[in-house]
Amino acid sequence: MKRIALLSVGAAMVGIATGMASTSRQAQQPVESVLDGRLPAGYRDWRLISVAREEGELDDIRAVLGNDAAIKAYRERNHPFPEGTIIARLAWSYDASEENNKTFGRRQSFVAGHPKNGVQFMVKDSKKYASTGGWGYAQFDDGKSVLDAQRIAMCYECHKAIKDRDFIFTNYAP
Amino acid sequence: MKRIALLSVGAAMVGIATGMASTSRQAQQPVESVLDGRLPAGYRDWRLISVAREEGELDDIRAVLGNDAAIKAYRERNHPFPEGTIIARLAWSYDASEENNKTFGRRQSFVAGHPKNGVQFMVKDSKKYASTGGWGYAQFDDGKSVLDAQRIAMCYECHKAIKDRDFIFTNYAP
Repeated sequence: MKRIALLSVGAAMVGIATGMASTSRQAQQPVESVLDGRLPAGYRDWRLISVAREEGELDDIRAVLGNDAAIKAYRERNHPFPEGTIIARLAWSYDASEENNKTFGRRQSFVAGHPKNGVQFMVKDSKKYASTGGWGYAQFDDGKSVLDAQRIAMCYECHKAIKDRDFIFTNYAP
Repeated sequence: MKRIALLSVGAAMVGIATGMASTSRQAQQPVESVLDGRLPAGYRDWRLISVAREEGELDDIRAVLGNDAAIKAYRERNHPFPEGTIIARLAWSYDASEENNKTFGRRQSFVAGHPKNGVQFMVKDSKKYASTGGWGYAQFDDGKSVLDAQRIAMCYECHKAIKDRDFIFTNYAP
């Protein structure tokens, strides 16, 4: 607790000193909270890993963000990912933008609409999640944890296919 | 110069104290540098505003990132955007992912491939860019500034259509 308090003070000091929104809050985010049913408060501030589009039933446009451990490991090509890595998958409806199309003069533009298909997380804790490749899986729908064990187990079933890259499909977009 | 040096020291201290990658470098990034032909060193660390897909000639998948001023203004619905706001548009090739499709058991997945269509910036400086709605426009191809005045002028020609939202098409993806 003392260490966390000290980090808070340090972060606050710099927030004031530089006059910017500090993203250092994530340093205080315990890895466990993600799978304890609490949405990590700062995940929307995490840095971008990549973007994607899923057709079919998912029908969304998505962004994959990572905490500092994730971004560092991606950039240094440090696999397997270190303990404490958290990767977040956000998704939104895939909406044709009439506004953009009007300006372009043709139908070509699709943008992110409302949040869709929940927010998913992968959390690296090799001991705790040894039975699922060292990663815990979590999903939040409308900010609420989806605790359906069967549904979560399905995550690992698919991610097993990419064991060679430490179970992570998403590559870093330069 | 003295103030910048002090901020550097402050940022470095917290980088050490929290053991995390500091994104505070952007506080030292002069707005002018974007349009002086220098790619802002920290823009890839900026936070996500939204994602989009462009078909047609552009044929890319893209992410729009913002510096702290941009993110704050978006979240507080503070329009017009304050001086010093910088918005970055990154884009990548729109690649079908055979790897993902194999796992999904159907063709549905498209991911970001190689960087494409340059990196574009909008910089808010109402005085300097009064003739183009208070925003300066810049583009970097392979990290090099595109100084073609005619090409840059085309940016404003299209963005004029969205004057009611301070010339910014992209909405914040929650």
